[in-house]
Amino acid sequence: MLAIALVHYPVVNKNGQTIGSAVTNLDIHDIARAARTFGADAYFVVTPYADQKRLVEEITSHWREGYGAGYNPARKDALSLVRVSDSLAAAIATLGEECGEPPLVVATSARAGDKSVGYQELRRQIAIGRPTLLLFGTAHGLAGEVIAMADAMLPPIYGAGGYNHLPVRSAVSIVLDRLVGPARD
Amino acid sequence: MLAIALVHYPVVNKNGQTIGSAVTNLDIHDIARAARTFGADAYFVVTPYADQKRLVEEITSHWREGYGAGYNPARKDALSLVRVSDSLAAAIATLGEECGEPPLVVATSARAGDKSVGYQELRRQIAIGRPTLLLFGTAHGLAGEVIAMADAMLPPIYGAGGYNHLPVRSAVSIVLDRLVGPARD
Repeated sequence: MLAIALVHYPVVNKNGQTIGSAVTNLDIHDIARAARTFGADAYFVVTPYADQKRLVEEITSHWREGYGAGYNPARKDALSLVRVSDSLAAAIATLGEECGEPPLVVATSARAGDKSVGYQELRRQIAIGRPTLLLFGTAHGLAGEVIAMADAMLPPIYGAGGYNHLPVRSAVSIVLDRLVGPARD
Repeated sequence: MLAIALVHYPVVNKNGQTIGSAVTNLDIHDIARAARTFGADAYFVVTPYADQKRLVEEITSHWREGYGAGYNPARKDALSLVRVSDSLAAAIATLGEECGEPPLVVATSARAGDKSVGYQELRRQIAIGRPTLLLFGTAHGLAGEVIAMADAMLPPIYGAGGYNHLPVRSAVSIVLDRLVGPARD
């Protein structure tokens, strides 16, 4: 079981204050397509706000059961992975019940932290079937209390040099490719 | 010199017909941020349409010189890579002049083709300084006449199984990570 959680609360803003961010249509679609491509089993959209949860349900139902399902079956496939969760704790509990053991909870961040696990080491854990939940933050990143709930953290994605401002959609794609993509040719 | 071209014309639609697609704000931002992260030198937005070219100029100038430049310097950095080009031929000619030799033109596709070059082989070529232009298609992918202009093609990105419907923004991120990202840890 490999799952992703996109956290909209609690995250931090530009000034490091804890906020809740708005769900976007784009993050739902792009991340669902990446998740489906790399064989993830679930994509949790984490938000406690009723209007935001309703928005996610409206978007996904259009593509899962509405007109979009017939128009674009590949999109239906991807969006079938989306689940809405009130909180990260609820998503972790759900996964634990489904897997019969608590998932390994792994945070991602544009800043280095402690509890670091390498991509290759985590790749091995996933390959041997360890249930794993990858956490991604919106806005300016996961709040400290979310990182504190994680068992481990992946190193930031650096390319060439110190520029470190990838969209979360790009980060999810790269992390999945590194963790479960094909071996390098 | 590593450059990216996002082609809006000629590309194909769902039925394989040649069309011109619309430029999107999203593709400009997301791909510029990935290009900047991985140290690409230029990001060509290829479209022959005057209104579309104007739109790209308006968006990039807001972030390069307008209010956005002060508000978000990291975005200014990324969008400074964006150039508008009338055609792929023009982008190739420009790069050739700047580099003093024709760039290696490498197409990407969700479908396998001939002229295939492996990621590791192309990574070596880029590392030794071979000027390279990576082509990405919008809509349902690059038209045959664009692929015919390429010297080589990268294999499609597969994850787990046959689902192969990544957003172009995800594909750019993954291809750059494979070609110029850090060695796997």
